[in-house]
Parts: sequence; C-alpha cells; structure tokens
Amino acid sequence: MITDQKRILSKEADLHSYAFDGSFGYYLPERVVQPINSDEVIDIVKLANQYLVPIYPRGQATCLSGGPLPVDGGIVIDMVKMDQKLEIDSENLIAIVSPGVITASIQKAALEKGYFYPPDPSSAHVSTIGGNVAENSGGPRGLKYGITGDYVIGLEVVTPEGKLIRTGGQTIKNVTGYNLTKLIVGSEGTLGIVTEITLRLIPKPKKSVSLMAVFDQLVDSGASISTILSSGILPAAMEIMDQSCIQAVENFKPSGYPTDAAAIVLIELDGHPVAIEDEIKEVATICKQLHARTVKVATTEEERGKLWEARKLVSPAITKIKPTKISEDATVPRSQIPRMFERLIEIREKYAIDLVVFGHAGDGNLHPNILADKRDQEEMRRVEDAVTEIFEAAIELGGTLSGEHGIGTMKAPYMEKELGIDGLEMMKRVKEAWDPNNIMNPKKIFPTPGVSKLVLTDD
Amino acid sequence: MITDQKRILSKEADLHSYAFDGSFGYYLPERVVQPINSDEVIDIVKLANQYLVPIYPRGQATCLSGGPLPVDGGIVIDMVKMDQKLEIDSENLIAIVSPGVITASIQKAALEKGYFYPPDPSSAHVSTIGGNVAENSGGPRGLKYGITGDYVIGLEVVTPEGKLIRTGGQTIKNVTGYNLTKLIVGSEGTLGIVTEITLRLIPKPKKSVSLMAVFDQLVDSGASISTILSSGILPAAMEIMDQSCIQAVENFKPSGYPTDAAAIVLIELDGHPVAIEDEIKEVATICKQLHARTVKVATTEEERGKLWEARKLVSPAITKIKPTKISEDATVPRSQIPRMFERLIEIREKYAIDLVVFGHAGDGNLHPNILADKRDQEEMRRVEDAVTEIFEAAIELGGTLSGEHGIGTMKAPYMEKELGIDGLEMMKRVKEAWDPNNIMNPKKIFPTPGVSKLVLTDD
Repeated sequence: MITDQKRILSKEADLHSYAFDGSFGYYLPERVVQPINSDEVIDIVKLANQYLVPIYPRGQATCLSGGPLPVDGGIVIDMVKMDQKLEIDSENLIAIVSPGVITASIQKAALEKGYFYPPDPSSAHVSTIGGNVAENSGGPRGLKYGITGDYVIGLEVVTPEGKLIRTGGQTIKNVTGYNLTKLIVGSEGTLGIVTEITLRLIPKPKKSVSLMAVFDQLVDSGASISTILSSGILPAAMEIMDQSCIQAVENFKPSGYPTDAAAIVLIELDGHPVAIEDEIKEVATICKQLHARTVKVATTEEERGKLWEARKLVSPAITKIKPTKISEDATVPRSQIPRMFERLIEIREKYAIDLVVFGHAGDGNLHPNILADKRDQEEMRRVEDAVTEIFEAAIELGGTLSGEHGIGTMKAPYMEKELGIDGLEMMKRVKEAWDPNNIMNPKKIFPTPGVSKLVLTDD
Repeated sequence: MITDQKRILSKEADLHSYAFDGSFGYYLPERVVQPINSDEVIDIVKLANQYLVPIYPRGQATCLSGGPLPVDGGIVIDMVKMDQKLEIDSENLIAIVSPGVITASIQKAALEKGYFYPPDPSSAHVSTIGGNVAENSGGPRGLKYGITGDYVIGLEVVTPEGKLIRTGGQTIKNVTGYNLTKLIVGSEGTLGIVTEITLRLIPKPKKSVSLMAVFDQLVDSGASISTILSSGILPAAMEIMDQSCIQAVENFKPSGYPTDAAAIVLIELDGHPVAIEDEIKEVATICKQLHARTVKVATTEEERGKLWEARKLVSPAITKIKPTKISEDATVPRSQIPRMFERLIEIREKYAIDLVVFGHAGDGNLHPNILADKRDQEEMRRVEDAVTEIFEAAIELGGTLSGEHGIGTMKAPYMEKELGIDGLEMMKRVKEAWDPNNIMNPKKIFPTPGVSKLVLTDD
C-alpha cells in the first residue's frame, strides 16, 4: 500500500492537472495516486476491485484520443514516478524499462551503445513508454520500422484483479500460447497496468539522408509516394503536408516555404552510406519525373534538421489558427491516399471548417486536424459532423479509424461501423473475461450504448 | 452446408490420413470435411457448436507440436481445398490469400512482382499459409525479418460459434481496439478458423550473400554470433549446426563436411550490393578473429545453394539415425546460447539419448532433435525425461518453450512452468470467452489437469 502521503493527491488544485489529456474533454478524478513499484500498483488495483472504484492508469497524458481521461471519477494512477529501470542489454539487443521512463530517454540510451529504438511518436520527448505501449504509438518511422508494438517482446502486467503476470519474455521468437503481449499493447489501459516492458532494439543505421520534394498537384505527390515504394526502396519515413498546412507553418514562422504549392513530401532514407547514395538519386529522379517543382537533398545533420523543421512546426503552427484542435489519424490503404485527400477537401468545404492535413503518407496514416473554438457551439456541431464523415470516408476506402492515436473516448462511438457487431462483441468478451467488474479504464474503446457519434458540445 | 459428398470423408482408410501430424501421436477422427468457402466453414462450425462435437482445423499438418491432432475424435476440417485466392496488390504492397494456399506459392508470386514475403518455415514448400498463421511459424529469416505474425495485418475468421468477423485490415498501421489479429495468429486453431489472410509484403532485397564459418570450439561460434550482432550488422539468417548434426549430414550424403568440427555457422546477408560487400568482409574478419578454422563466402545463387545444402539436409539426415524424431524449438535469450548448448550436451549424456542440435542461432531459437524408436518403451521414457529437462533448462535461462513450432499437445504439460498459474489463467479466460463450449481444437495449448510432463509411452 502507498504509505507516502505525498504520492496520494486529493486537493482540488492537484486533481485539475489530471482532468484532461491531449484530446478533448475535462473530467475531475476523486484521487490521484503515484505508485513507484508493482506492489503498490497491485494494492491499489485490488482495493479498487474490491470497492468497485474505477481506475485510470496514465503516463504524461499526451494521448490524442482520450485514453487517460477519468470519465467516471474514481482514481487516476499516475505512473510517471515509476521510472527506475532503464537497462540496455547489449548481448541480447534488448532494453528493459519501467513504464514511467520517457520514450526519448530510451532512444538516447540505445543510441549511446550503438543501437536503435525506432518508434518515434511526435511526443517522444514528453511521453512515457508506458503510455506508448498502452496506445501502441506510431510516428513517421512506422513505414519502414513499424510501431511501438513491433518492439515490445515482454511485459509485466498487473491484471484488473490485481494479479501480477508476465507475458512474452526476452527472446525475439516466442510462440508459447496466445500472444498476450500484443493483446495488451494498444489495449489503452483497459486490460491491466503495465509495470515493466522489454523492448527489442536493432543495430543503428549507419547513415540517414533527407529529401524534400515540392509538388504543384496533390495527385503527383501521391503518385511519387507509390512509385518510390514499388521501386524497391523502403524509406525510413515519408511525410506529406498539404497546402493549408504549409501556409500555417509559413504564417507561424516565415521560412520561405512555398505557400502556393499543393503539397510538400519529406522523405528520409537510412542504411548503408553507399546504398543511400544510390537510393537518394533514384528517389529524386522519380519525384522530378512526376513533376516535382523542386527536390532538395540534405545529408548533414544540420541540413536535415532544417528540412524537417517545417514538419515539426506543424503542431504549434496550426494551434495558432484556433484554440481547439481535434487531431485525427484515420488511416487508409496507401493506394487510397489521393482519394482520401479529395474526400477531406470535400468535407472541409461542406462543413466550412478549418482543416489542415499532414501525416505519414507512406503508410496511409494521415492526420486531418480540425481547428475550432470549443466555446462556439454551432461550429463544434459542424466539427462533430465533419469528424463523423472523416471516419466514414476512411472506412469506405478500406481503412481504419485509428492508425496510431488509439480509440479512447474520441472514436469509441464509431467502433461498430468498422468492426461490425460481431467483431466488437469478440473484443468485448476479452474485456469482460479479464475485467469482470469493469474497473480498468471504463468507457474507453467500447461505445456507450446509444451513442453513435462524437459529442463535442455541451447541450 | 457441404453438399458435395466427395468432400466429406468417413471411410476408415481416408480417416487414417488425418490421424497424425509432424509430431508424435495417432488419433482417428470420425469425419473429415473439406470446405471451399467461408459459408461452408460457418455451417460446419455452427453445427459442431450445436451438437458439441469437437472440430480440428488443419492445413497440410506439417505441424511439429500436435496442433492438428484430433485428440478427442470428432471432425477434422481440412482447409487445403480453400486455396482460390492469391492476389498480390502492388499498389498497397499486400497479398490477400486463402488459407489453403501453399506458403511457397505466396513467396513466388510476390517475387515475380519484385516483392518479398520473408517468413520461410522449412516446410514452406508443403505447408499452407493458414497453418503458418495458426502456428505463427518462423524460419531462419526470423532474425532480421520476423515471423509469420509480423506480416499478417488482416484476417477473416469464423469464430467458434460460427460468426464471421474481420480483424485488422489492409493498412500497415491499425490500432483500432484490441489487436485481435495478433491474438488469433499463433492461437493454433483454438479461437476460430481463418478463412482469409492479408499479408504485408516488402521490397525484395537487391542482393543476398552467404558465408559458412567452421569452428573448433562451440564457445567461439557463440561469441562470433554475438559479436556480429553487436557490430551493427543484422544478417538475414544465422544458423548453427553442432558436431552431431554435421556428422549426421556427412553420413547421409558425403560432401566433405568437417566431421571433427565443433560447429558450423551459416550466415546470410542481404540488402544493397555495395553494403553487403562491406558487411561480408566485416563478418569474415570477426569469425577469423574468433578462431574460425575456415570461412567460405558464396555470392552466386549456385554457390549459395551449395553452402545451404548441409543445413537443408539436416532433417532427412537425422531421421536415418532412428525412426522416431522429437523436434523441439526451446528458445533462449541470445546471450544464453552457449550455456544452452552445454545444458543440452549434459542432458544427452545423462539420459543416453541421440540428440542433435541445430537451429536459428541469431535469435536464440535452437532445435534440439531427439532420435529414438517409439517401439522401445524404455528409451521413450528416457526421452520423456530429457524433453522435460530441455524445457526446464530453457525456462531457467530466461527462455521459452517454443520459438516457432507452437505448443499443441507436445508442450501443453509445461505451460504452467513458464507462465505461472495466473499467466495461464488469463490465457484460458480468452479461450473460455471465445469458445464457451470448448469445441475448437480442444486439449491444445492448455494442459490437461494432472498432466505435468510429456507422455510418449503407452503404459
């Protein structure tokens, strides 16, 4: 049991810090506890299970889908103080880490020993690895390297009834029974609380090179992306920013980005220096053949940093447009990216909303971001409808509600649309079997009966 | 319903063909049905569920752990005739396939379009992709490229109650709810019957080179493997064969392999031609520094084929030693490979058994194979004890019961040893929630109460 009163927060001022995440909505918890080891987590969970109190594990709450929101009151379990372990095991090419460790610290510790932990959610400098595991976070490098879940090979987990289990282990190959590791990764804290994580690492790529191509037609940028991928080259990342996004960045910090261009595509290649040299030439040729206005190559760290600056400024830049940001991550099969762009433009016009689009074009994972003002109820109603139509478009095009942000509260109403009644029912059976009292992060992932669209308005 | 009587087998002669797999044990089913589409599968499953008849899906039954064995009688569902679909979608870099398609056909179809489906279980030329998905099959390329489950992004599944669900989809990134795709992959046909599979493909590596290093000391071969991996090189495969294995191959087909060597290590590198040239030099230097007696490099297809011949002859060679083969795939963290070899040698001596060791050294996935004669009950009892001790050694060294063959009937008795009561209980809850009548491939993965070791003898 937590005896250190400093790690049990109940003052209202403190509770307010735990009422929100990176998405939308504000819910005050009744208590916040800050465990520092598995035993404390077990005690809290057992107690909550006994008295049927809802509990909400959270890391730094950079979540964009409402995962950590204490929607039914109860106890927030703040895991950030559980950050004691960060071991890099060179012999086995693995890292063993506590859930409260910041993701960027793992990347750094690995790099120092010559290894690479590829997943790079934009929040990596703030977010915890526990949060990344809960949400199965992605990032630009998903294209070549996969996402968080592709690197998690073992977990220590406190079940919703307070039992400590270990899933997977320290070996890359493990097919012993059901893959509970991958079941828990991305389960958004609804199936248990992760208290230790084993990650596989890979050798650090010898060199990275970046390239920026500017297009006058969206269709050409899309064609370049698919042509590069079918040429046998697998870039580490391929990011796209549409015109509204370029304009927002240029308004935010004038740097000479072409505000009249239809799209900018950023490409990162990594691997053996000689191989990259070949590949960068080939990529540049493809972009030029597909009518890129300009193609810029950056080989030094500094040049690369400058090229990626535009992409990194997107988030701060667009929040200057309007105070409320609804970030989506609807993902479509790569071949449908041009069609999805068209649909997004139609939706922007139909609902007269501020919509900018950027994202991980190589893997079909776009980020349509809607900027609005939550005090404007009429506007928010238009946003609600636009969001619904974005999800419908993604599903119609053979895609999915979420490529990397998770479902949380924000996309739960749309789950049945994608999965069907039976698909959703099979997920729910796992939840009910693991958490019979429904105390672990309730009302996430699964829709509340009767609620079939996102509600952002108060009335 | 299946109306074509030719696809319902009930003659005893036919049933005998379905009584065994690649492991151990012989169980006659009561019927065999051969569906050709999902609707037929649904009808069979619904009927079985209504009348509480056990059903056993199977592909080509090359399984090494007892997965397809009809241990409780009932109906075998032979999926090999459901092989209609094999689509390569170049735009999205995916393949959509029916479960009865032979794995090698997928590799071939992908290669013809310039793509690569990396998983390469040794049985790839015979086994079905449905069987590979059920067992989450591996192979030598697991080291660099991962295993079957790493390529499955979407499934169509008939649940144990006869509902048709779709999991995942056609996008590489998908974090919409629980990862049911990865839950079903490797669930050995206990959670449903897969009726369609979507696989991601990757660009074909531009070149492959192989290298064979011969060592006089097992410890040097182990050190070479870890030194290569920590040098920043990630080979496509790293295979090891111990002395008993080399001798078996040389006895089977004399080709001049050094029967006095302690171990042969085979390494495959792939990627950009120039990068590989560098890497092969570095790998050769490391092996020589670690006292390799000889290092041979093969760059042409023909030379490579010859180098890998020894490895490919292992299975036919060792079955000449004695008629009954028990193949294990206990897997340990890479750093424990030398220690695991020592333990295996101790076990061989202690129980006076014929044990040869080969396997995927780079990822710690060894294949200790025991050769025996099942008619010799006394010998089989020694084998039972040896197998138990092999599993205990793997778990003690931080490893797992199965790296790629699955649990089936052969390893079920040892599950609690690895997972603990609570870990096993959480797996069982998934099974019970999905298959309340326990009709889907019963008595696999989960131990029969009271049975805590493998039984290979009749009395």
